[in-house]
Amino acid sequence: MAILLTNDDGIYAPGLEALYQELQHLGPVTVVAPESEQSAVGHAISLITPLRVKEVSFDGRAEGFAVSGTPADCVKIAIAELLPGPPELVVSGINLGPNVGINVLYSGTVSAATEASILGVRGVAFSLNSYDQNADFAAAARLARQVLERAMGWSSWTNGVCLNVNLPALPPEEVRGLKLTRQDTGPLVEHFERRVDPRKHVYYWLAEIHERGELDPDTDYGALAQGYISVTPIHHDLTDYRSLGDLQALSWD
Amino acid sequence: MAILLTNDDGIYAPGLEALYQELQHLGPVTVVAPESEQSAVGHAISLITPLRVKEVSFDGRAEGFAVSGTPADCVKIAIAELLPGPPELVVSGINLGPNVGINVLYSGTVSAATEASILGVRGVAFSLNSYDQNADFAAAARLARQVLERAMGWSSWTNGVCLNVNLPALPPEEVRGLKLTRQDTGPLVEHFERRVDPRKHVYYWLAEIHERGELDPDTDYGALAQGYISVTPIHHDLTDYRSLGDLQALSWD
Repeated sequence: MAILLTNDDGIYAPGLEALYQELQHLGPVTVVAPESEQSAVGHAISLITPLRVKEVSFDGRAEGFAVSGTPADCVKIAIAELLPGPPELVVSGINLGPNVGINVLYSGTVSAATEASILGVRGVAFSLNSYDQNADFAAAARLARQVLERAMGWSSWTNGVCLNVNLPALPPEEVRGLKLTRQDTGPLVEHFERRVDPRKHVYYWLAEIHERGELDPDTDYGALAQGYISVTPIHHDLTDYRSLGDLQALSWD
Repeated sequence: MAILLTNDDGIYAPGLEALYQELQHLGPVTVVAPESEQSAVGHAISLITPLRVKEVSFDGRAEGFAVSGTPADCVKIAIAELLPGPPELVVSGINLGPNVGINVLYSGTVSAATEASILGVRGVAFSLNSYDQNADFAAAARLARQVLERAMGWSSWTNGVCLNVNLPALPPEEVRGLKLTRQDTGPLVEHFERRVDPRKHVYYWLAEIHERGELDPDTDYGALAQGYISVTPIHHDLTDYRSLGDLQALSWD
């Protein structure tokens, strides 16, 4: 099984390296990842600027390409230009930090998996529920591989749907299992910090406050908080079908 | 009705100016828009870099703010910091070029409307089916206002759903009417152009080829191609509920 591996933390991130080690067991892996960190780029693609591609010897063994773009750019250019043929699986991650709830929309990690599904390839995003640079990515990557081995049994995976997987940052024995979840849609609690630079100019920095109280355990956010691996099927049809009926009832003439 | 106006082509784009003129008739308008073009940034937000905000006198009359960020950043910082209170409506556009089908995912214009819906405010994105810098944005803005006046009758608009509106670039008498549509999910046909720079380094540029044959007239793409105004309700729950059942049937242990 030919695998394309990417991420949004950049090609030298430890989460990618750990995942690479595990994916070796499933098939040949080509790494095509951003040359620099691309967090919160959402589903951005590069139109105004061209892409540069640098061949790198990844881990002393693998073929790798560092791309001057976003995760979605990496998937596009890998499939269109860099790989000999389309991969059978696109894996994105492991991201440092969870991608649950509304944050799924801002996530470069998830957008790589979505881009795969747009291009008709199976895609999966892995994120770790930790912001600690020294988090145990090796343990997380073993969990990721287990999830992948199960998920490969899903026969309709390529049908415009990818998987968004969030992994608890817990010792293996404390992981409570796996839950199939929906995306949490609760509001973010965030504010901006107003600061003044050395030249007396004001600037703002987005700061997020997590103070959500009750979490639904059937959501990605809730399941992860309880110590489960969360697996959410994600698609790229943003139509809200329930509203279509509502809107038909309005007068548009 | 207090209105926040933004876009992704930048604060000095003619599409924003034209929309501003029409929105005046509906209520006080504050412009908070990117200081430079932000096309195809998707739902990116700025985490790694801070935001700068520059007050500008917009059109000699209005209060305006140019932000060193993405459309989603503009909506966030406007509501959190710049406006005296939450607006009753967030309008994004008019974008130069349509935002239909898969391109909705890459669109900064649409992401501003989505961000509004995340923050509990009515949001609407307007895009024009033309790439001509001299397109008739005034005529398009009049159409946009008509659509808005009808849409304001939609009582459940704030319920996590925004509207993605695409306008034909046609003389008013040739516009065939308005269609409520779903997002087209057909594949993009695209490739990369490989070029060599003056220093003999290779670079790539994404080039899109439109050669879709049959279009479903019930989709945004199809309705617009036939000369209709397309209105699609868009939400931010990316869960593919149909797959959840499928996945439950797999063995995950």
